[in-house]
Amino acid sequence: MKAPGPRNDRLLRALLRQPVDRTPVWMMRQAGRYLPEYREVRERVPDFMTLCRTPELACEVTLQPLRRFDLDAAILFSDILTVPDAMGLGLHFVPGEGPRFERPVRSRADVDALHRPDPARELAYVPEAVRTIHRELDGRVPLIGFAGSPWTLATYMVEGRSSRDFARIKGMLYDDPDALHRLLALLADSLVDYLGAQIEAGADALQIFDTWGGTLSTPAYRAFSLDYMARILDRLPRERDGRRIPVILFTKGGGAWLEEIAAAGCDAVGLDWSIELGTARARIGDRVALQGNMDPAVLRARPDVIRDEVARLLRSYGAGNGHVFNLGHGITPDVPPEHAAAMVDAVRELSPGWHRART
Amino acid sequence: MKAPGPRNDRLLRALLRQPVDRTPVWMMRQAGRYLPEYREVRERVPDFMTLCRTPELACEVTLQPLRRFDLDAAILFSDILTVPDAMGLGLHFVPGEGPRFERPVRSRADVDALHRPDPARELAYVPEAVRTIHRELDGRVPLIGFAGSPWTLATYMVEGRSSRDFARIKGMLYDDPDALHRLLALLADSLVDYLGAQIEAGADALQIFDTWGGTLSTPAYRAFSLDYMARILDRLPRERDGRRIPVILFTKGGGAWLEEIAAAGCDAVGLDWSIELGTARARIGDRVALQGNMDPAVLRARPDVIRDEVARLLRSYGAGNGHVFNLGHGITPDVPPEHAAAMVDAVRELSPGWHRART
Repeated sequence: MKAPGPRNDRLLRALLRQPVDRTPVWMMRQAGRYLPEYREVRERVPDFMTLCRTPELACEVTLQPLRRFDLDAAILFSDILTVPDAMGLGLHFVPGEGPRFERPVRSRADVDALHRPDPARELAYVPEAVRTIHRELDGRVPLIGFAGSPWTLATYMVEGRSSRDFARIKGMLYDDPDALHRLLALLADSLVDYLGAQIEAGADALQIFDTWGGTLSTPAYRAFSLDYMARILDRLPRERDGRRIPVILFTKGGGAWLEEIAAAGCDAVGLDWSIELGTARARIGDRVALQGNMDPAVLRARPDVIRDEVARLLRSYGAGNGHVFNLGHGITPDVPPEHAAAMVDAVRELSPGWHRART
Repeated sequence: MKAPGPRNDRLLRALLRQPVDRTPVWMMRQAGRYLPEYREVRERVPDFMTLCRTPELACEVTLQPLRRFDLDAAILFSDILTVPDAMGLGLHFVPGEGPRFERPVRSRADVDALHRPDPARELAYVPEAVRTIHRELDGRVPLIGFAGSPWTLATYMVEGRSSRDFARIKGMLYDDPDALHRLLALLADSLVDYLGAQIEAGADALQIFDTWGGTLSTPAYRAFSLDYMARILDRLPRERDGRRIPVILFTKGGGAWLEEIAAAGCDAVGLDWSIELGTARARIGDRVALQGNMDPAVLRARPDVIRDEVARLLRSYGAGNGHVFNLGHGITPDVPPEHAAAMVDAVRELSPGWHRART
């Protein structure tokens, strides 16, 4: 028997290209620094990872944006680097500079020394946070789980930090591709475990963030990023209690490869703002749902400008099913929360006209 | 009567899609920090702009890569920010951080206070450098002149420095588009003067670098970047002494807009490495030449890997005219010069098979 899903199931229906009464909306990084109530919780803990590792606090900040805005989904508050951290690389955050690993992966020997983390043990705080949030949500809206893509995680693991030119990992890619393939295969296996644990704990949908796939050439993207995401999609359980768990693949800068991304086994493709929704729909909208794609910079503009941009994007997608409104990347810390509200309200008010009455 | 062009005219012929014996090759930032002889000259002057402002030194570093590698073009050594500098913004370079403007453009009033620089006066060192290089080249290879696109220059002028999220200029774009249009129109006019002066001084071809156009949404790219490049192309003299001066438009991250870029009035489109040459050729190769597009990161790999990648790119473009081999972005300071040589040599050795005997 099918267990009951969330009462507001617009997101899940849209991801499966089923009819909805209006376009569902959520925001990447909707739980974050632009919210004063988030900053208040963040100040209570010594560092960012403590926030991720404390299920009650992760739950609290996950729910904060839902109290302010009429959002159609919650997304687990966590970080994509939890998995490399559990592999023993020594994650820490340098204020103003972002993540750093104490022991980056630089050689084949470094790769061979890594292990596949057990999510029930080394990453237990993540499924625990999912369970806590799921309980607190009490079926109001779906909960999205997530992970970074193998390639994206590998960039941080090899570079040891954020990078602009990916010198070290591309050096490995071209000079020792076998070592990189071993690392990516281990990450893919680990992510199947990790995302599987999130599903089991109550995640209703998943997103894989391939933040840095767009820095690759086409053949390198296929071989070192997309193939490993496809492997995850192939091995991941895609149902819980008889309900489909839809998966969104988001490759920032992946506009050239939409057809291939859509064929990788996902339910929906996340789009950054460099591509028109209408164009993307014409290319792959018959196979997958589309999520996106407002430039987060628009949220710094006046509310009437934000509303116009929401209207333009809804018009670009056009009538019918299969659209989840979102930003094309995460909301930035300098956005006034009222501007986020203007976006969410505009989607709620302007989108019903693009949907027929739900049957 | 047509004045004689350069003896090696492969670049100019390829840009006009005429037959060549082999694919011409040059590298973005081929005169630069990866060369020890460049660093030696750079150390003789107090700052980077002095190098740009001293025609004899700019000429010397322009010619350096031609002494090492079998390149088919020289490119003027200069900086895209010379024009905003001449507008009085106070350009300086902070070591390790890049360019800064003392007086960034933040308001409509700031825009209105700017003037259109006279290239014969405030920028006289640039045409003077072109004349010097042209004389020293003595007709061996063509000399490429260049400028930044209006949008790209405006990003530095408004942000005051390099940016990751372009918060200020996108704020202006969405909240005060008229002010930004005034700035872009002034830049387009100034760039017509500036590029015109380079043609007059001896540039044989031009490239417009739209480094940051790819950070825009499609309608914003059209209205705030491409339209102003098209305006420049429309107003610029396109001939000197009866010879066509081909212009290359390069929008990094512009893969979604190739058809529109090709229709903007350029002779060639520069490509970053995110798009396949063969795909780009199928889309726009009947209208323009293509330049690119090896990932500069490949130059860190072993010479045999570099050679394989050159072979792959030549195969992707396929047989026939209209290809200029280049990187998809500038060469980085950490590349061993022998690796650049491996790329240039591979193009020379592997490309003739893709061209019929020149008639």
